[in-house]
Amino acid sequence: MKNFDPLETLISYLRFPSVSTDKEFHEGMKDARNFVGGLLENMGFSVELIETECHPVILAERFVGEDLPHIVLYGHYDVQPADPLDLWDSAAFEPEIRNGRIYGRGSADNKGPTIVHMSALQEVLSEQPDLALNITYVIEGEEEMGSPSMPKFFDRYSERLSKADMMFVSDTGSPTTDQIVITTALRGLVELEIKVKGPKSDLHSGIYGGAVYNPLHALSEIIASLHNEDGSVNIPGFYDGVSKIEHWERDELKRYPLNLEEYQSMLEVPGFYEPRGFSPLEAVRFEPTLEINGMGGGYQGEGTKTIIPSEAFAKITCRLVAEQKGDEVQNHVIKAIEERCPKGVKLEVRRGCFANAYSVIPPNKSEAVECSNFLKNAFSVTDLAIQKQFGKSPLYLREGGSIPVIADFKNRAGLDAIMVGLFTPEDNLHAPNESFDIELMQKATATFADIFRSLGEPR
Amino acid sequence: MKNFDPLETLISYLRFPSVSTDKEFHEGMKDARNFVGGLLENMGFSVELIETECHPVILAERFVGEDLPHIVLYGHYDVQPADPLDLWDSAAFEPEIRNGRIYGRGSADNKGPTIVHMSALQEVLSEQPDLALNITYVIEGEEEMGSPSMPKFFDRYSERLSKADMMFVSDTGSPTTDQIVITTALRGLVELEIKVKGPKSDLHSGIYGGAVYNPLHALSEIIASLHNEDGSVNIPGFYDGVSKIEHWERDELKRYPLNLEEYQSMLEVPGFYEPRGFSPLEAVRFEPTLEINGMGGGYQGEGTKTIIPSEAFAKITCRLVAEQKGDEVQNHVIKAIEERCPKGVKLEVRRGCFANAYSVIPPNKSEAVECSNFLKNAFSVTDLAIQKQFGKSPLYLREGGSIPVIADFKNRAGLDAIMVGLFTPEDNLHAPNESFDIELMQKATATFADIFRSLGEPR
Repeated sequence: MKNFDPLETLISYLRFPSVSTDKEFHEGMKDARNFVGGLLENMGFSVELIETECHPVILAERFVGEDLPHIVLYGHYDVQPADPLDLWDSAAFEPEIRNGRIYGRGSADNKGPTIVHMSALQEVLSEQPDLALNITYVIEGEEEMGSPSMPKFFDRYSERLSKADMMFVSDTGSPTTDQIVITTALRGLVELEIKVKGPKSDLHSGIYGGAVYNPLHALSEIIASLHNEDGSVNIPGFYDGVSKIEHWERDELKRYPLNLEEYQSMLEVPGFYEPRGFSPLEAVRFEPTLEINGMGGGYQGEGTKTIIPSEAFAKITCRLVAEQKGDEVQNHVIKAIEERCPKGVKLEVRRGCFANAYSVIPPNKSEAVECSNFLKNAFSVTDLAIQKQFGKSPLYLREGGSIPVIADFKNRAGLDAIMVGLFTPEDNLHAPNESFDIELMQKATATFADIFRSLGEPR
Repeated sequence: MKNFDPLETLISYLRFPSVSTDKEFHEGMKDARNFVGGLLENMGFSVELIETECHPVILAERFVGEDLPHIVLYGHYDVQPADPLDLWDSAAFEPEIRNGRIYGRGSADNKGPTIVHMSALQEVLSEQPDLALNITYVIEGEEEMGSPSMPKFFDRYSERLSKADMMFVSDTGSPTTDQIVITTALRGLVELEIKVKGPKSDLHSGIYGGAVYNPLHALSEIIASLHNEDGSVNIPGFYDGVSKIEHWERDELKRYPLNLEEYQSMLEVPGFYEPRGFSPLEAVRFEPTLEINGMGGGYQGEGTKTIIPSEAFAKITCRLVAEQKGDEVQNHVIKAIEERCPKGVKLEVRRGCFANAYSVIPPNKSEAVECSNFLKNAFSVTDLAIQKQFGKSPLYLREGGSIPVIADFKNRAGLDAIMVGLFTPEDNLHAPNESFDIELMQKATATFADIFRSLGEPR
């Protein structure tokens, strides 16, 4: 086995434009998949490509022996769309190093962290080729689509996966490059798109204006009705299953290294929502949301075009917490939209995927937790490795983002996840100029090497 | 002078993509301008191109002698943008004849009617080269932008234009190809665009969702607040200057050859607004409006992108009636938007142009009208010519559209307009598959030939 250079490898990996949501990037998806599969084969894994209805899953195994500890490492090889392209300082798929950061779509989400895990593993395996640790890699290609094929994947592989003890994931964030967060919960996700249809084609707004219902007016009325003034969601049943937060969770958040003023100036926003009395820093972790991710209709070009547009659309996602059910929330939202749609237009709804929230209570934070010894040990080993490499204990916090598949790993294969957050706000996730901090990359690699070494030690 | 073929000439004219609002079409504008200027020169006009800050005005004169009747013919060589291009059955700027119609952007608005006037004039001039009628052509290139350069044009040329007796315009509509409307009023126009700005760049909707004010939510709230449920405008002061309609106007509308069911099925809409108790057919003529012509923000592509967009925009136009003042309405709208903009986002407003409404009371409809003998005669001649060629008296109706410059011709040069409507709802004005009826084109040419002959007769 010839060792790879972590940074060079990441640069090569970033060159593949693996945008899963857009069919145009089919080749980039294939190339990224083959690249990462090749790396795993090179490290001695037996690699399978599991076909799905869309993008195959990479399933790779290193089996050393029965009755040995067994971990799962999860990641994804797909990335978010890169547009708006003109806001990137260097091209999204031509990675560039500037000021200690590597820029490129996917650098932080999730290609950099994937290379961190692999580099750490390569380091330990070159010291101990017989490391007493069974490892299964699951690297999917539909995370940025909401992992629609994973339920079928679990139909076939959950039994095999359930033999593992737990899993590691690095697809969450930390507030700064030296304060690592272990994520204790992920929000669920509900997706839908609505289209409001008016006249059969765009109409002259002078000749027909005043009588014909404008789809953009109707859509705005619907969208405006979905929130209250404090930013909370105005849909009956939406908050069913939302539970109170724990004392230790508020305590951990007090140690958060960013105060509200810094948070505000970082984002350059004039103000914040404070839904249902939650502070902004609490709201993004503890509260469910309904966001319009895209909306449009009518003339989009320069200047004016005096029309009543034929139709208008809105792309909607909700983030769920605690026991909210994805299917029920989707139904509540659709029902509210249908009821509020003015009679002068027609409504079309496209249901997208949905996924429930996930949470794990770390054994060192609550005594009431039932937890396997292996998971308890893994949490402890991870905590110590982070302290050693980053100089500070990790924070245990809920996360606002979603990795829908993590709840499935728990529900379908019984696997709890230790989620070590490796991206930071400066990384511009899902936005132009996404980047990954190279020093953090190196420290995180050392951290995971410590973790893999410890977990492979005879017990 | 060699006579041109009307239909072939229109086809050539339609090939020039003269979209005034988009800089990309600079060449098309120039070509269209030169083409129509060439036609006028060929008919013996002295043609001047009057430079403006944007697109030059064609000013052409045929001066036969002092103390002779003098008419102005107004038109515009610019057209609306052609998008969405994929909804056209034949390319927007590659004219095609199908089923007795000529398809192409600008065929009805306003290139077809311009060729009608010219063909009629060519016919009369070839019979009577010395026709005792002074004629001034004003063909501008910014009508679809709201004629922003025309005030300065009037600063220089209103005195010269004021020597004319009245003007003809064919830039309005008729309900069917055999029921011609003489338009007695045009709505004014107010233009503006707003941008709502949130975070400095698009943000991950999971990581920041719930705290950061989403510009699309804010924009929807603003837009939704601008109308009442009946479609009327919810802005203080908006209706100042709106007057009651006259009895004869309601009477004329009763003769309108389209009932509400036909109107609805033609437009394929599920229902209509009935603002302030006006029926839909009344509302589009008698009521002012506020329309969102385009709106957008966030992800516009296929699938989902889980972001909070950095900004969102809306393009707004109002149509004014009677004594509403464009500048005041613009101020009222901006004030309401500023007051209603949530504090969590920043608002940017671009003021567009504005123009007041115009009306002329036809002498045969109301005895209370003061009106020159020439205008009285011109109305009568036009009414008779339409009866003769189309077999029915014209209807005298207000029109929902705007030709901002017509009010300026009245206010700056004292010219009232006889507006003979030559496009019909089937023409798809401002929309994909714009077309112009060829039989109507021929009848209208004969009508205008009759009019020009009569007006040039010794009196």
